[in-house]
Formats: sequence, C-alpha cells, structure tokens
Amino acid sequence: MTAALNAYFTKLETRCKKADSSLCVGLDPDPDLMPIKSPNDPESIYKYCTEIIDATAEYTAAFKANIAFFESVGVEGWHLLSQVLEHVPDDIPVIVDGKRGDIGSTAKHYAKSMFNVLKADAVTVNPLMGSDSLQPFLEQKDKGVYILCMTSNPGSEEFLLWFDLFMQIAKRVNEWNVNGNCGLVIGATKPIQLSHALTEAPDIPLLVPGVGAQGGNLELTLAEARGKPRHKMLINVSRSILYASTKPDYARAARKAAQTYRDRINQTLAGKG
Amino acid sequence: MTAALNAYFTKLETRCKKADSSLCVGLDPDPDLMPIKSPNDPESIYKYCTEIIDATAEYTAAFKANIAFFESVGVEGWHLLSQVLEHVPDDIPVIVDGKRGDIGSTAKHYAKSMFNVLKADAVTVNPLMGSDSLQPFLEQKDKGVYILCMTSNPGSEEFLLWFDLFMQIAKRVNEWNVNGNCGLVIGATKPIQLSHALTEAPDIPLLVPGVGAQGGNLELTLAEARGKPRHKMLINVSRSILYASTKPDYARAARKAAQTYRDRINQTLAGKG
Repeated sequence: MTAALNAYFTKLETRCKKADSSLCVGLDPDPDLMPIKSPNDPESIYKYCTEIIDATAEYTAAFKANIAFFESVGVEGWHLLSQVLEHVPDDIPVIVDGKRGDIGSTAKHYAKSMFNVLKADAVTVNPLMGSDSLQPFLEQKDKGVYILCMTSNPGSEEFLLWFDLFMQIAKRVNEWNVNGNCGLVIGATKPIQLSHALTEAPDIPLLVPGVGAQGGNLELTLAEARGKPRHKMLINVSRSILYASTKPDYARAARKAAQTYRDRINQTLAGKG
Repeated sequence: MTAALNAYFTKLETRCKKADSSLCVGLDPDPDLMPIKSPNDPESIYKYCTEIIDATAEYTAAFKANIAFFESVGVEGWHLLSQVLEHVPDDIPVIVDGKRGDIGSTAKHYAKSMFNVLKADAVTVNPLMGSDSLQPFLEQKDKGVYILCMTSNPGSEEFLLWFDLFMQIAKRVNEWNVNGNCGLVIGATKPIQLSHALTEAPDIPLLVPGVGAQGGNLELTLAEARGKPRHKMLINVSRSILYASTKPDYARAARKAAQTYRDRINQTLAGKG
C-alpha cells in the first residue's frame, strides 16, 4: 500500500470528515417498495431518488447506485440513472454498483461505461473470471474498485467458502492493489469472514453492505474493523433508509434514518456501541 | 433432466436443424474494430449490427449480444441494443450476454431487465454469489440460463481452478436444473475442463466461447462433446466473424466467415474435422 490516497479515496476521506460519517446510502429504486403513485415511471423515480439524495446528503459519506434497479425500468433506465447521479453534490463520491466481470476486451467496455458514461468515482466488480478480467478497472488509478469478496446473501457461502475462496480473493486483491485503488466488498452478515479477510489484506478499504433489511449485525461487524480510518470502512444501507416510511413523508423519514445510522456507526466505531 | 425441452431449448433445437448449424454469432460492436466511418455513433452501430445479422442469419443457430459494448456507447446504449435485438428474425434465439449476478432482491431486477426489457430468450449469469443470487433467473421456466463455469480467458484459472471450483459449479448447476433451463459457459480454450465438467453434468447444454480471436481449439473442444445434440453444444464466434474484413465489404466477409465456421463445426462434430 502506498501511503498517499488516490483521488477517489482522498475525495471519500474528505467527505467522511465533512459529514462526520461512514455511511453510504444505497439508491435502489424498487417499484414494489416506493410509496409513490407511479413507481414505474422514470420521472417519478427521478423525483424519488433526488428527494432521497437531498434529504440524506448531510449525513452521507457516499451514494451507491445499484444499476439493476435502473435497467429494469426500461431502455430509458440508463438515462435515468445518469440523471440521478448528476444530482449528487460534487463533493460526495458516487459508487456505481454493477458487479460487472468479463474477459479483458469486454471488461474494457464495462470500465468505459462505468467511468466515462456514468462518471462513477468507484465501482463494484466480480472477480470470478480472474485478474485479466479486472485489469481495465485496476488501471484506473484515480478511481475506486471494490471487488466482491464475501457477499451478504445466504448463498454466498456456496462458492465463496469453497476452500475459503474468499481468503484467496482477499490475498490476490492485496497483490493487485499497486495503484491503491482497490477495496473489498464484505457483507455485514459475515463478521467472521470479514475478520479473516483482513488478515490477508490488513490495509484494504471495505465496502460493507447487508446492514438493515438484510439483518447484518452492525456492532459485531464494526468491532472487527475498529481502528480502520473511516474511508476504509464504508457501511452501506439501502432499503432501511430508502423505504424508512411507506407514506408520503418518505424523504423526511429517510433523512431521520440516515442520521440514526450515521450516529450508530460513529458510536460503535468509537467503542460506545 | 426432463426429457422434454423447454421453450428456449425447443426454439434453439428447431433453429439448429433449420440452419444446419451449432454456430452462435456474437454481436460485440467495438468502435476500435468496426471498419466504418462513425463507429461511436449509435445509428452507425445499428446499421453495422443489423447488416451483420442479415448477412450471417442463414448460417446462425443463435445470436449473442454482449451488453458491455452497448453500455459503453452512452446512455442511449440500451435503446440501441433493444433495437438491434428486435432486428433478429423471430425464429433465431437471442442470448443476452451480461454475466449478471447479485443478491436475490437485486437479481430479480436484472432478470426483469434481461427478459422483459430486452426480451432475451436466454442469458449468461455469474454464479459467484450462490444459488439465491440466480434464483430469479432459474425460475424462468421458458428461458435459457447459461452459468459461467470455466471461462475462456487466461485469468479464469486463478479462481475457477481453485480446488476445482468449476467442477463444484457444474455439480450445483446440474442440481439447480429442475426446470431444464440451465446451461454452462465453458471456453473453447479449456477442453480438459470441459471434459471434466461433463462428468458432473453429462446432459447439460453448453455455450462455448473463445473460438477464433481468443485462440480456442475448435476441433479439440468439439471432440470432448461429440455425440451431444446440436442445441446442447452452441459454439460462439464474435470477433472473427464481426470483423472478418477491415474494409467496407465487412458484411459479405462476415457471411463467408459464418458459413466457414458453421461448416467446420459440422464437419468436426461428424468426426471429419
């Protein structure tokens, strides 16, 4: 690891300090959950997402948009996603969560779509196909590349625990991190694996989903990473903030939920959780 | 395995017979390779892709579109992809190659985007996150779901050969295949692993990329699967057909290349290769 942070992690660190926060707010506009009249209409989704951004920004270290929820809107989904991301204040990093992975000549185009088309500060990628499939992302010295290591869902144990594959991934990512732009995705539902992965890659930044709706134990997870600088321990919450209310007061409820999560994370990291 | 084919594999089998072909033509419009004046312009890409479809359809069992090459065009990429796919004749199956994979609640939206928005007959998916991440795809009884098992790129050995992970994937896919809608992606550069995977899943249909530009050995690969019905051994060729000529005669050259590959595959499968 180089001592100096790259452009993405510098932006994230600055924002973490300004917002006094390690909270990443996930933007997953689900038509089945949004308490609005026309949840399948791009304009309504745009309004919902931008209201959530405005309401939660004060407490937010980063926003993470999950592409699936935009693609499923229709062929206009990518335009919608691009517009929503443009609404994020310039000083808040944007993580585009697409978990892409393909052979190098194809991955080059995914990297272009994430960083040039969507102007992401950071992305999530799937390492299954190996290092050449990630090379077009790893080459982006100024960006962040969060690589799936141990995901939050129950099925993640089927292959990621196959002879501790997740440990091998953590080890290889630590080797690939010559540009200081790598991170690992490790679910909050997997505190033991989080602890083990850090033995292979002690300095690696983490993106931790699975808190809230997925039942991850925030306190247990954070205890495993206590002492890590804030920008290296980004906690993502999506549904529990986005759908904190099933009524028209969703934006106000999201703001309150974001503040609550931000404070809980801070208290736990300070050992008061 | 059920004896009766599902809707997708019935469509594929019918088409394989009609075109006397096991060839899948990959649609990967790469601006760096297309011999046209405006390779970054959606209208020019549409023209190129539809000309390739028209020129090669006669020899083609299926078309496979790789989403990366459309996403990287810009926010209009999905609209372009949708239009290109609409141009494929109704009796030729369309495989959308996106290698998606995410937690179940997200994967549900990827399945919607592939099958409802893009109207794919079949898709490729990434199994790293386990069975619950694939469930929304596996539930689609009428579709095809090709799961990455051993990919064609060099880096695939890093994790897919980790304690023979690819064998474990083949074994699990065979168990998941209760709807008869599963297949495996195994690269033509990996004939030994192809042979081994078939010991775990003898009846599973295969989608085999890596022939042509990637250097896969067609004869060696097909020898491992001789005797499989045609629709269970789909050989994908992308760049060697799409960019068979670097001049304005690209469509004619693509047609000739498609015919040559179709015939080579047929001869090899008949033991005359």
